[in-house]
Amino acid sequence: MAQALANPDLISLAAGFVDQQTLPVEPVRTAIETILKDEVTACQALQYGTTAGDEPLRQAILAMTLEADGIAADSRAPTVDQVVLTAGSNQLLHLVAETLLDPGDIVICASPSYFVFLGILGYLGARAVGVDVDAEGMLPGRLEQTLEQLERQGDRDRIKAVYLVPYSDNPAGITMSAKRGEEILEIVCRWSGDQRIHLIADEAYRSLQYEGENVPSIRSLDHDGQTVIVAGTFSKSFSPGMRVGWGILPAELVDSLLDQKGNIDFGSPFFNQRVMREVVSSALYGDHIEKIRAAYQEKRDTLLAAASDHLAMIKGVKWQPPTGGLYVWLELPGEVNTGPGGTLMAAAINAGVLYVPGEYCFPSEGEGVRYNYIRLSYGVQSVERIEQGIEALARAIQKTLV
Amino acid sequence: MAQALANPDLISLAAGFVDQQTLPVEPVRTAIETILKDEVTACQALQYGTTAGDEPLRQAILAMTLEADGIAADSRAPTVDQVVLTAGSNQLLHLVAETLLDPGDIVICASPSYFVFLGILGYLGARAVGVDVDAEGMLPGRLEQTLEQLERQGDRDRIKAVYLVPYSDNPAGITMSAKRGEEILEIVCRWSGDQRIHLIADEAYRSLQYEGENVPSIRSLDHDGQTVIVAGTFSKSFSPGMRVGWGILPAELVDSLLDQKGNIDFGSPFFNQRVMREVVSSALYGDHIEKIRAAYQEKRDTLLAAASDHLAMIKGVKWQPPTGGLYVWLELPGEVNTGPGGTLMAAAINAGVLYVPGEYCFPSEGEGVRYNYIRLSYGVQSVERIEQGIEALARAIQKTLV
Repeated sequence: MAQALANPDLISLAAGFVDQQTLPVEPVRTAIETILKDEVTACQALQYGTTAGDEPLRQAILAMTLEADGIAADSRAPTVDQVVLTAGSNQLLHLVAETLLDPGDIVICASPSYFVFLGILGYLGARAVGVDVDAEGMLPGRLEQTLEQLERQGDRDRIKAVYLVPYSDNPAGITMSAKRGEEILEIVCRWSGDQRIHLIADEAYRSLQYEGENVPSIRSLDHDGQTVIVAGTFSKSFSPGMRVGWGILPAELVDSLLDQKGNIDFGSPFFNQRVMREVVSSALYGDHIEKIRAAYQEKRDTLLAAASDHLAMIKGVKWQPPTGGLYVWLELPGEVNTGPGGTLMAAAINAGVLYVPGEYCFPSEGEGVRYNYIRLSYGVQSVERIEQGIEALARAIQKTLV
Repeated sequence: MAQALANPDLISLAAGFVDQQTLPVEPVRTAIETILKDEVTACQALQYGTTAGDEPLRQAILAMTLEADGIAADSRAPTVDQVVLTAGSNQLLHLVAETLLDPGDIVICASPSYFVFLGILGYLGARAVGVDVDAEGMLPGRLEQTLEQLERQGDRDRIKAVYLVPYSDNPAGITMSAKRGEEILEIVCRWSGDQRIHLIADEAYRSLQYEGENVPSIRSLDHDGQTVIVAGTFSKSFSPGMRVGWGILPAELVDSLLDQKGNIDFGSPFFNQRVMREVVSSALYGDHIEKIRAAYQEKRDTLLAAASDHLAMIKGVKWQPPTGGLYVWLELPGEVNTGPGGTLMAAAINAGVLYVPGEYCFPSEGEGVRYNYIRLSYGVQSVERIEQGIEALARAIQKTLV
């Protein structure tokens, strides 16, 4: 096992890293040259920034968001004061969780959910309660049932938020439909009483949609602007090494979140914000997005074709083709345990392929943990290795089922 | 008042920013060119890093530290696994505080102390207890008395750490002598029982020593390596916009701190770490340090000369010349209230100069808050404006004392 793990040819379909070949070397070079060639802008970029982050970049992010949602910057739209820059969207999720939650508080999550966010909740002593999903996202009926049950248990006042990854979900690859988003938001607002329930929309993969309709952000449906918190990032759409993320917050949350950020780091690295300002205010960003969408779409198509060739004939193996993002979520027959101690993991590593066991993605409460899922990522590997990896995985599954 | 505050000629001796003129534009340009000219190193720099941070940079930081302490990398020295990179030393301080402290826990701090750290403690619900200092740092006798008193109060088990800024303290400008460091460490180790007391050495200004003996880090005196936590940063010595800081941790703290960092951001921006690796592994860093030491020394000398000319004749006004760092800590007659509601602040702003009221720098427990101190920073302003600022301040003080 140790030898198999150390195998340099092991194909990792586990890592959530982005494609190495399409990283934006040229755009970054151009942006940094522009900043450093002028002594004044160069020195500004190397100095401290503010806690909220570079205002022109926050303006640009807001403008991009409103444009993507097809709404005008009218009096109802959020203002630049509601946009906060962080070192990746994870830091924003952590700040939001720290701001909203006390130990014992409840966040309702899709089941499955992004495992790093579940880790944040666990670290803060908060409870993650899972609600089932279908091909359009979290099930409104199940959400309502879960809320009712929590109320019956006397926990209604502990419910502080609902967490969703509306675009090409990590891990399930689901994009929530506009209609479904509306239904979920309606339920959240209706159940929000003296104790407000926020809806955290983690839109990390919004720019990585390869096909399908443009779904406006659930934030654009939040009429009084007090419920939805958006987390965004340039890590997936541009560069994780630059690590610039953001939040668009209800106005009433801004001060407490900035107070907290002031204590932690009084602002994320300003140089990186300046680079991203330069990138998004030119054609560099749009051009790069088009390029990586094409590259990831090809990889996704490769994975799906390989899955049809090698996995489709195995009884009980199912998946839903994602329309964006980096992940395919594979359901295996109920008797297969995909976990680190199970036979499939050992068989897969011996066959030369690595995956993320699905069990890490399930909130422990609510629907509970399931052991027969795996997350596959097509972000890092080449098309050749994606094909080889799926073939190896199919062999491992067949072996496990014998 | 509002008009005076909005005065564009207002001279801020308050901001802790670094000198704009000597920011390392050329070294950053060279380092980034080296990274981006090769497609492989460029893509690596734009990808995710690890939670602990770039290993070659951690190696380089460790080597620099051991060299500065004049000790060999022998079996007793910390290893690279004990070095963690963060987005500035503040993030490290926050992580350490989150890891060590529960609400109600106690950190003994110099009185005065770095106000941002006091803010972190307040945010976490921890108690900051102040211990008086003299020209060599925290007073060992007073520290011992404070520990005894806390024990009498039944609080011994809540004492989790002692926090020091050993080099050119923010705000007091004091560099702790080697002998004093030894005495403090001995007391901390002796009082450390079942509940270990850590010593947090915030060495943000270690590279900014302009004169005086080289004082080895208090960490080098920590024989079993289990007590001292070092926080360091390139923000002051190189660029705050790059914002790369680090911690050197007792081995037993590494895992829990990395777990927590994994939840918060799974690693600080890797691009910045790669830039700093390039910088410290060439002559760029040493050359830059020499340049800024000279620039800051000139500014310090200017401030001290102006203080001699304009402040020395005012009865009850005292200061200790710092041998490094960015701050001069001014004691005013006991009857002066330097706070935001006091007459001196208004007089100073009207005279055209801004300072940090000393009251923010005192832990509320222990020695208690004092209202007749101010922190002056010579980092940002030109020598001309430092002179004008001190002259204006002298006028404001004279006016307040009438």
